Amino acid sequence: MCSICLPLFAAAQHPVTFFTRSEAAELKSGINKYPLLTDSYQEIRSQVDAWIGKDVDVPQPKDPAGGYTHERHKANYTLMFNSGILYNITGDAKYATLVKNILLKYAVLNPTLKKHPQATSSSPGHIFWQALNDANWLVYTGMAYDLVYNSFSASERKTIEDGAFKSEVDYFTKDLKNWFNLIHNHGVWACAGVGIVGIATNNKDYVDMALYGSEKNGKSGFMAQMDGLFSPDGYYTEGPYYVRYAILPYYLFANALQHARPELKIFQHRNSILQKALLAGLQQTNIDGTFFPLNDALKEKDFTSNELVTAIDIAWSVYGADKGLLTVAKKQDKVLLSKGGAAIAAAIAGTKDIPAYYPYKTVEYVDGNKGDEGGVSFLRNGKGKDLSTLVFKYTAHGLSHGHFDKLNLNLFDKGNEILTDYGSARFISVEQKYGGRYLPENTAYASQTIAHNTLVVDEASQFNADEKLGEQFHADKLFSDVSNDKVQVVAAKEDNAYKNIHLQRTEYFLQIPGGRKIVLDVFNVNAAGEHQYDLPFQYSGNLISTNFKYNYNGSQQQALGKNNGYQYLWKEAEASVKDSMAQFTFLNHRTFYSISSLIKGEAKIFFTRTGAGDADFNLRREPAYIIRTNAANTAFVNVIEIHGSFDPKAEFSADSYSAVQKIELLQNDNDITVAAVTIGGKQLLVAQCNKDFSKQSKHSYTTFNWTGPYAVWYDGKTLQ
Amino acid sequence: MCSICLPLFAAAQHPVTFFTRSEAAELKSGINKYPLLTDSYQEIRSQVDAWIGKDVDVPQPKDPAGGYTHERHKANYTLMFNSGILYNITGDAKYATLVKNILLKYAVLNPTLKKHPQATSSSPGHIFWQALNDANWLVYTGMAYDLVYNSFSASERKTIEDGAFKSEVDYFTKDLKNWFNLIHNHGVWACAGVGIVGIATNNKDYVDMALYGSEKNGKSGFMAQMDGLFSPDGYYTEGPYYVRYAILPYYLFANALQHARPELKIFQHRNSILQKALLAGLQQTNIDGTFFPLNDALKEKDFTSNELVTAIDIAWSVYGADKGLLTVAKKQDKVLLSKGGAAIAAAIAGTKDIPAYYPYKTVEYVDGNKGDEGGVSFLRNGKGKDLSTLVFKYTAHGLSHGHFDKLNLNLFDKGNEILTDYGSARFISVEQKYGGRYLPENTAYASQTIAHNTLVVDEASQFNADEKLGEQFHADKLFSDVSNDKVQVVAAKEDNAYKNIHLQRTEYFLQIPGGRKIVLDVFNVNAAGEHQYDLPFQYSGNLISTNFKYNYNGSQQQALGKNNGYQYLWKEAEASVKDSMAQFTFLNHRTFYSISSLIKGEAKIFFTRTGAGDADFNLRREPAYIIRTNAANTAFVNVIEIHGSFDPKAEFSADSYSAVQKIELLQNDNDITVAAVTIGGKQLLVAQCNKDFSKQSKHSYTTFNWTGPYAVWYDGKTLQ
Repeated sequence: MCSICLPLFAAAQHPVTFFTRSEAAELKSGINKYPLLTDSYQEIRSQVDAWIGKDVDVPQPKDPAGGYTHERHKANYTLMFNSGILYNITGDAKYATLVKNILLKYAVLNPTLKKHPQATSSSPGHIFWQALNDANWLVYTGMAYDLVYNSFSASERKTIEDGAFKSEVDYFTKDLKNWFNLIHNHGVWACAGVGIVGIATNNKDYVDMALYGSEKNGKSGFMAQMDGLFSPDGYYTEGPYYVRYAILPYYLFANALQHARPELKIFQHRNSILQKALLAGLQQTNIDGTFFPLNDALKEKDFTSNELVTAIDIAWSVYGADKGLLTVAKKQDKVLLSKGGAAIAAAIAGTKDIPAYYPYKTVEYVDGNKGDEGGVSFLRNGKGKDLSTLVFKYTAHGLSHGHFDKLNLNLFDKGNEILTDYGSARFISVEQKYGGRYLPENTAYASQTIAHNTLVVDEASQFNADEKLGEQFHADKLFSDVSNDKVQVVAAKEDNAYKNIHLQRTEYFLQIPGGRKIVLDVFNVNAAGEHQYDLPFQYSGNLISTNFKYNYNGSQQQALGKNNGYQYLWKEAEASVKDSMAQFTFLNHRTFYSISSLIKGEAKIFFTRTGAGDADFNLRREPAYIIRTNAANTAFVNVIEIHGSFDPKAEFSADSYSAVQKIELLQNDNDITVAAVTIGGKQLLVAQCNKDFSKQSKHSYTTFNWTGPYAVWYDGKTLQ
Repeated sequence: MCSICLPLFAAAQHPVTFFTRSEAAELKSGINKYPLLTDSYQEIRSQVDAWIGKDVDVPQPKDPAGGYTHERHKANYTLMFNSGILYNITGDAKYATLVKNILLKYAVLNPTLKKHPQATSSSPGHIFWQALNDANWLVYTGMAYDLVYNSFSASERKTIEDGAFKSEVDYFTKDLKNWFNLIHNHGVWACAGVGIVGIATNNKDYVDMALYGSEKNGKSGFMAQMDGLFSPDGYYTEGPYYVRYAILPYYLFANALQHARPELKIFQHRNSILQKALLAGLQQTNIDGTFFPLNDALKEKDFTSNELVTAIDIAWSVYGADKGLLTVAKKQDKVLLSKGGAAIAAAIAGTKDIPAYYPYKTVEYVDGNKGDEGGVSFLRNGKGKDLSTLVFKYTAHGLSHGHFDKLNLNLFDKGNEILTDYGSARFISVEQKYGGRYLPENTAYASQTIAHNTLVVDEASQFNADEKLGEQFHADKLFSDVSNDKVQVVAAKEDNAYKNIHLQRTEYFLQIPGGRKIVLDVFNVNAAGEHQYDLPFQYSGNLISTNFKYNYNGSQQQALGKNNGYQYLWKEAEASVKDSMAQFTFLNHRTFYSISSLIKGEAKIFFTRTGAGDADFNLRREPAYIIRTNAANTAFVNVIEIHGSFDPKAEFSADSYSAVQKIELLQNDNDITVAAVTIGGKQLLVAQCNKDFSKQSKHSYTTFNWTGPYAVWYDGKTLQ
C-alpha cells in the first residue's frame, strides 16, 4: 500500500510543526504593535517566567481528572509548548532549558508506565487515566520538542525521542491499535499526536501511520478521518460540542503537515473541508457563543474556548480574512503567537465597528460522509440579540456520544435556551464527581429519549437505547423550504427507532403579521396497533398559567416510571384532558412562551422535574411538560409562541397571554395533513403532503389549492 | 398646632416641583454637549413624539397590575411628566397640549371613581388596584401639571385642579386618612403625591398635610417619615429593597420643597439623612448592583432602577460630586433631564477610568429611629469582582415587609448569592400571577423562619409568624470588631423570638494565611427544657460531595413538615449523624464552597428542596442543608469555606476539597465559648465571651489569655 506513502522529508528543518523560523520572525515584529498580540504574549510570558529556574514536577501518574497528577501533567505540556514558543521569539536559551529539563524527566518516566491506576475506559492511558489525554500530551509535547529541537545535542535528542516519545507512540500504534485506528474524535487526537511527534522527530514511519493508519493502508488515519467524520458540507457527525474538540487536532496537525508535507495540500483537501467544518461549527452556536448542546455536550463550552482560538487563528492564515471570524476572535480576546494570530490582532486593531454577533443565518446540514444520512436544520429568525433559533435534528446517531433523539426539537431565543436539551451529565475535571468523567446518569438519563423533545413510544427509548443498533440507521429529511425568513419549513421521518412505527415531524417556523413568532409542530405517528405515546417538551422557565386544571402532588410525589430515564423524573402534577386545546405559558428571563396542544380524544398531561433517583445529586433539576396518549395512528399538533415581555425593574409586562384560541386538525391521512390555528381571531391554515413531496405536484383541500409539499395561509392569504 | 405651619407661598412661580425655569435653561445648553444627556433627551423625545397628535386613552379602571388599564394609566403619568419636561426645554406648545388633553380626561374621570374593582388591600386605589399606585400617579401628574402650568388658562387650571386632583387628594387625606398617616413607604408616596400636587396647585393646605399629616400635628406626614423610618446612620427599617422604592418620593418631594419652601432646608434635615439613606442603600447592594434581598425583595432590582437614577441625579446637585455615585450613574447609562442629571452627564464625559465597582466596604448599620433597635452588619473581604460579603441581620422587624429571620446569615461571593435568602414570592406586574401582587406563598413560605438561615425551634417560626408581635421586639448586637479586614467579628442575641429561649450567634469572617476565606459561625441556644432545633443553610449550587452517608428518597419523596413553611420543602435526602463532623461541598459557578458542621450527640441532616405544596408553581426550586438536633442548651458550630476554582472551558479544577479536618467545642458555658478548627493541619482557635463584652476585661482558657470579648489564634499566634 506504500503507493500512497510519500518520500522522506526533503530537509528536516525545525521548527516546522507550529510555525517556521521565518513565521516566528514576522510575528515578533507585531508584538509591540497590536494590543491583542501584546497581551497574549505577556500572558504566556508571565506564566512561563514563573517557572524559570524552578524544578517542574513530573509525578508518577496516580489521580483521575481533577486530581494533582492529572492536572500537573496537563499543565506541563502547556508549559513546554509555551516555553518553546518563547524560545523562538526571544532566542533566550532559558526557555529551551526549561523544556529540556521536563522532557528528560518524561524520558525516564514514560518507558516505565503501564495502564493508569484510575483507568476505567477501554482505552486506558499511561500518563493520564484515558489514552485521549495522552494523545493531547503528544500533540503539545511534540510541538514543544520541535520548537526547541535546534537547541539540543544529538544525544539529548536520542534520549528524549527514545524515552519520552517512543513508548507512547508504540503504545498507541501497537497495544491500542484498534483505538488508534478509530474514526472518532479520539482517533483524530491520537493520529495528530503521533503525526506531530513524527514530524518533530523526523520519523517518516510515525507520520505515515498517522496519515494512513497503523497498517498504512488508508482505511484509517488522519486522511480517513478527514473523509469520514464530516459530511460534504462540514457537519461533524458527533455534533457541535465535539467538533469544537476535534477541530483542534485537525487544525494543528494540518498546520504541521502544511509545512512538512506541502504536497498534500491538506487544507484544500475535500473542497477545503476543514474550512467548512469550522464555519459549520460556528453556525451551530447560540448568540452567546455556546455550542448547541446536541448529543453529549457541556453547556459551558463556547467559541472562546482554546480549541477555537487555535482553529480560527490558523484558518485566518490559511483561508484568508473573514469578517465573521473577526467577531469571534474579538470575543476570544486572545490570539495564538502565530502568523494567523498576529494577522488577526492586526485586523482587530485596524477595524472599527466589528459586529457584535457572528453572522448567523438559517442553515441545514446533511450528515454522513456521503451526505446521505439525514441531517439537522437550524432555522433562524430575527436579528442581533433578538435572534431565535429552532433546531430540528434528524441526523445519524453520532457515534459513541450520540443520544437517542431522532426528530428532536430545541428552541433558543434571545440567547436563552427555551426548549432544552439536557446535554451531558458531567462535571468535567471535578475529581469528586466520578473523576470528572461522564457520570452514570449520562447513559441512564441524559442520552435517553425521554430526556429530549421527541416522541417516546411505550416508555422505551429509540432503538431500545442500543448504541450499536442506533448506529445502523439515520432519519431522513422529506422536504424543506427556508427561502423565506418568515415561513421556514422542514419535514423529516424516522422509521427505525421503533419497530414498525413510522414517525414524521414537520416544523413550521413562522412570523405572524404583527410580529409574533410561532412554531407549528406537527408530529405524525403511524403504527399497526395501539401504543402509549409520550411527547415531552423540556422547557426552561417558570410556569405562569395553564388553561386546564391539574392535580399537584403537593405532600408526596413519585417518579414517573422505572426505566429508560423515566425513573429520574418526579411527577409534580398531572391532568386528564379530552378533545380540547391544552395551553400553558411560562416565563424565561424577560419573555413569555406558550405551548398550545391539540388534544384529540383522551390524554394526560404531566408536569415533571428531574431529581428522582438521583442519589448522587448529579443532575440539574429541570421541568418538562409531557403529553401522553394511547393510539395507533395520530398526529400531535402543538403551537409554540414567543410573546410579550416582562420587565421586573420597570414593573411592566406586556402580551403575557397566548394569542392561540383554537387548534383543529381538519384532515390527516396518508396523503395530506391540514391543520388550522386560530390566533388573535384570525386563521392560520397549514397544509402538508405526507407522501408526495414533489415541488410540482398540485393539491387541494376544500377551496384551497397549492403546488408543492406544503402551503401556509394566514387570514385567507398565502403567508409570506 | 399651626405654629409649625409655614406662611403661604411668597410668589407662586412655575415650574417649581421638578426644576425651575433657570435650571431648565441651564440644562438645555448641555444637551448637545454630553453624550449621556443627549441620549437621555433623545429617548424621552422619541417616546413622547410618538404620541403627539394622537388621542391618549384614559380608560375606566378595570384591570389589576399587568392588565391593560393598569399599564395604560401608568404609562400616562410617565408620558405627561416627560412631555412637561420637553415643553420647558423646547418651548413647543404641542407638549403642553398633550399634557392638557390627558389631564382634562382625568378631570372628568377621577371624580366618578370609587374603589377599584380589583382592589384586595386595605388601602384600595381609585385609578389602580391599590392606593399606592394612585400615589405614584399624583407624584408624576403633579409634576407634569406644574411643568405646563404656565400654558393653561385660569379656567383650565380650575377644571384640572378640582377634577383631576381634588378627588384624589380628598380620598387620600379623608377616606384613607389612617393609611395616609402611616409611617411606612406607602405613606411616603402618599405624602409626596399630595405635597407635590399642593406645590403644583399653590395649595398650602395640601402641602401642610403632606408635611405634617392630615391633622397637621407633625405626628405623621413627610417630616415624621424623615425622622421615623431611618436610623440615625441612614438604614431604612424596611430594608434595602424598600429603600430603593421609598427613596424616589423622598427625593422628589424634597427636591420640590427645596424650591418651594427653601426655609425648611429639607436636604440638610437630620444631619442630611437623605444623603445617608442613599449611600447606605448603595452599600447594601451586591457587586452586580442588585439590592441584598432582605425582607420582601425581588432579586431583579438593582441600582440602575429608575428610582436610583432619580435619587442619584438629585443628590449630585444637592450634595455635590461623589466618585462612587459616578460609578453607579455610568452603569445606569441614563440621566434625568435636570440640573443634577446634566452635571453627571458632564462628569462622565470628562472622567477617565471611572472605577468598575462601587466603593464597597464593611458597614454596620443600627436600626430604629433612635438607633437602638438592633441592626445589620455587612462584612466585606476582597476587591473588585472577587469581593465577598457576609450579611448578618439582627434588626427590628421591618414593618409589614419584614421576615421572621432574626440572626439570619447570607453570603455573597464574586457577585453570586451563595447562602441565599428567598426574597419575596412575587412575579411583579404579571397579571396571571395574582395580578402581580405578593403571592400567598410570600407569607406562607418566604417570610417564615425556615426559609432563612437561622435557627427554627420546634418547627415554628419566630414570634409564631405574628407580625404585630414581631414588631414589638428587635435583636441586639453584643459586640463587633471590624477594624481588621482579615478578622471581622460580630455577635448578636435574640431573646423574644421564642419564649424563654436565648439565641446568640457570632460570626467570624476570617482570612486564613494562604488566602482561603472562611466563616466560623457559632450559634448558641439556651432553653429551660429540651426542644427540636433546626439550623438551615439555604445554598445555591450543585452538591458535589458529602463526608457522610445519606438516604436519598429516590422513587418517592415527602414534604418535610406540615406548617410554618415546612410544607413547601421536599425531603430529598436525610442522614443520621453522631458525634462527628459532617461536611458537604457544593459548586456555585466557578467556585467551591464547603460547610463543615460540628455534630454533638445525635443529629439528623436533611437535604431539602422547595416545591412541595406549591400547587401554582409560584416558588423557585431551591435546595437547603438542614441540621436537626434535640437539646436544651447547645451550640452549633459551622465552618463555611470559600475555596478552589472550576473552569469547565479549560477543563481544570483546583482545591475542590474542604481543608477543614476537625471541629471541637473545647468549652461552652455561660461565660465563654472556645472552639477549635483544624484546617490543613493547623489549628484555628476562637474564644469568645458570652456575658462580659467589655473591651478591657481579661480572660483565659488553658494557656491562652486575651483581653476583650473575643480572640482568634491560628497556628499558635493571634490571627491578624
